[in-house]
Amino acid sequence: MTTLVFGHKSPDTDSTGSPILWAWYLNEIQGGNAEAVLLGEPNTEAAFMLEKWDLPKPRIIEDVADDQPCVIVDTNNPAELPANINGADVQAIIDHHKLVGGLETKGPIDITVRPLACTATIMVDLMGDDAAKMPDWAKGAALTCILSDTLEFRSPTTTDHDRTVAEKLAADLGISISDYASDMFAAKSDVSAFSDAELLRMDSKEYGVGDTKFRVSVLETTAPDMVLNRKDSLMASMSDVAAEDGVDQVLLFVVDILNEEATLLVPNDLVKTVAEKSFGASVSGDAVVLPGIMSRKKQIIPNLAV
Amino acid sequence: MTTLVFGHKSPDTDSTGSPILWAWYLNEIQGGNAEAVLLGEPNTEAAFMLEKWDLPKPRIIEDVADDQPCVIVDTNNPAELPANINGADVQAIIDHHKLVGGLETKGPIDITVRPLACTATIMVDLMGDDAAKMPDWAKGAALTCILSDTLEFRSPTTTDHDRTVAEKLAADLGISISDYASDMFAAKSDVSAFSDAELLRMDSKEYGVGDTKFRVSVLETTAPDMVLNRKDSLMASMSDVAAEDGVDQVLLFVVDILNEEATLLVPNDLVKTVAEKSFGASVSGDAVVLPGIMSRKKQIIPNLAV
Repeated sequence: MTTLVFGHKSPDTDSTGSPILWAWYLNEIQGGNAEAVLLGEPNTEAAFMLEKWDLPKPRIIEDVADDQPCVIVDTNNPAELPANINGADVQAIIDHHKLVGGLETKGPIDITVRPLACTATIMVDLMGDDAAKMPDWAKGAALTCILSDTLEFRSPTTTDHDRTVAEKLAADLGISISDYASDMFAAKSDVSAFSDAELLRMDSKEYGVGDTKFRVSVLETTAPDMVLNRKDSLMASMSDVAAEDGVDQVLLFVVDILNEEATLLVPNDLVKTVAEKSFGASVSGDAVVLPGIMSRKKQIIPNLAV
Repeated sequence: MTTLVFGHKSPDTDSTGSPILWAWYLNEIQGGNAEAVLLGEPNTEAAFMLEKWDLPKPRIIEDVADDQPCVIVDTNNPAELPANINGADVQAIIDHHKLVGGLETKGPIDITVRPLACTATIMVDLMGDDAAKMPDWAKGAALTCILSDTLEFRSPTTTDHDRTVAEKLAADLGISISDYASDMFAAKSDVSAFSDAELLRMDSKEYGVGDTKFRVSVLETTAPDMVLNRKDSLMASMSDVAAEDGVDQVLLFVVDILNEEATLLVPNDLVKTVAEKSFGASVSGDAVVLPGIMSRKKQIIPNLAV
C-alpha cells in the first residue's frame, strides 16, 4: 500500500516541498512506495518552486482512509490535518512546530521534531550521507523550503544550521541565493489573482487568547503595497471570513521581507487593543507598522494579548 | 537553572537509567546543567543497576514548578508524568512509546521517538560519536536498560539495532550478557519485600476497552512461582486496588522470562472473558498460561478485548 506523505492544509513552500523531498528519500533510498500529496492548493511561491524544478504538482487529497499508511510533515496539529488522521496508520512525523497535543498513533513510530526553521533542514539531517545522493530537483526543493521559511535568513526562526544546509545546497547547485530568493519572493508577492477572502486565509492559523479566537494571517511579501492598496476591501471582508470560520477576528499582518517589518491592519477597537497590548504599538488610523516583526511563531503568537 | 531529566511514575530500569545517561550527556558533552531525578521508588532491577554501577539513587520529586526546564524520557503520556507537566518548560522528549496526545510544549523543541525497544538505545544513537566517551558506569546503565526492556532480546519489541547496540556496550565493558542478565533478572524476581497491592501496581498501566477500565499489570520474572505461590492473596487484593485506583479490574500477567510465556490470574468471569477473547485461551480454574506472551506493548494491549 502506498504511503502518503503530506504537510498541512494551507500548503506553503515547506508543506509542498518537504513531502516531495521525503517521498524521494523513502522511494529511492529506503526502497519504499511513497507518494507526496497536498491537502490544498499550493501558494504562489510553492507553485514557483514546482515550475522552477520541473516537479509535477502532487495530487490534492480530501481525507485519509482508515489504516492508510502516511507520514506527516511540517505540522503535528490535528486541526491542520485530514479529519480522519487519528484513524490512519501514521508511520512517521517530521516537524518543527511546538507539540500541540491531540495527535495519537497506533504504535510507537518515528517522530522527529527539531527547533529549526524548516522541515527540509531536518530531512537533510535525517538522510545523513544519503543527502549527497539527492538529484538537483530535490536539492532545489530543499533550498527553496529553507529560503522560504527563513525569509532568506531574515526571520528570527533562522538557525545557523538552517543557513549552513541552505548554503551547501546552493553551492552544489551553483545558484546565487540572493538572486534565487528574489525570484521566489516576487512569485509569493504576486497576489493579484486572489480574492480578499483567499488572501485572509492563505497563510493563517487559528489561535485563542482567553475566550477570544483569532485567525492570525501573515502575508510575506517584497511588494507590500500590492496588499496594502487593497486595505479597505480586505478589512471589509474580515467579518464575513471570521463568521464563516467560527472565529472572533481576523488579524492580518503584511510582512515586508526586505524592510523587516510588519503592517497590521486595524479595522476596529479590538485589533487596536491587540496592537497596543501585544506589541506596545501606538495606533492612529487603520494600520500600524510593527518594526522587526517577521515571525508568527516566534514574535506574534507568543506575544498575542487582548 | 538546572534541567531535570526524568522518566515515568513507575521507575523501572529504563526510566531510572535513561535519565542518568542523558544527564551525563547534557552535562559532560553538551556543557549543560542537568540532574536526573525519579518520580517514584525504583523497582528492584533498577536498584540492582544503581548498586552494580555505583550510581547514587536520584532524588525523587513530587511535581515540577511552573517553567521548570525539564527533559522527558521513556514516556509521552501526561498521566505518567508530574501533574504540572504542561506548566513546565519541556525542552526535549526522547521516547519509544506510541504518541498518546495530551502533552503540549511552549515552543518547538527536540522530540525524538523511535520504534526501538529501549530509550537508552535511542540515546546512544543521538550521541553519535560522543557515545564512545561514555564512562563505564554510563555504558553499564545503557546496557542494563536495553537488556531489561528486551528481556535479554526475548521480547518481541526487540529490534536488531537494540541488540547491536547492547552487544557493543557489553564488548566494551568485557561483560557476558547472559551472566549479567541472569543477575538482573534474579534481582527483579525477588519480590518478597513487596505487599500484594504493591505487586499489582509495580509495573502497570491503565488501559480502557470500551467502557471497561483496566490496570494492566506485568511482572517479569525468572522465578514465576515466587509470585504464583501468592496467587490467592493477590486475587483477593485486586478489588481493593481497582477501587482505590478508579478502574474496573486489575489484570496481572506474570511473565516467565526464561520459558517465554505469561500466566494470567483469573479471579472472575470478566477476566475469563478477557483471556478467551484477547488470547483465544481456554480457561479452567483461576489462572491460564499464555504461551509466547511477553510484551504488554506489542502483544497484550493491542489484543485486549472484553
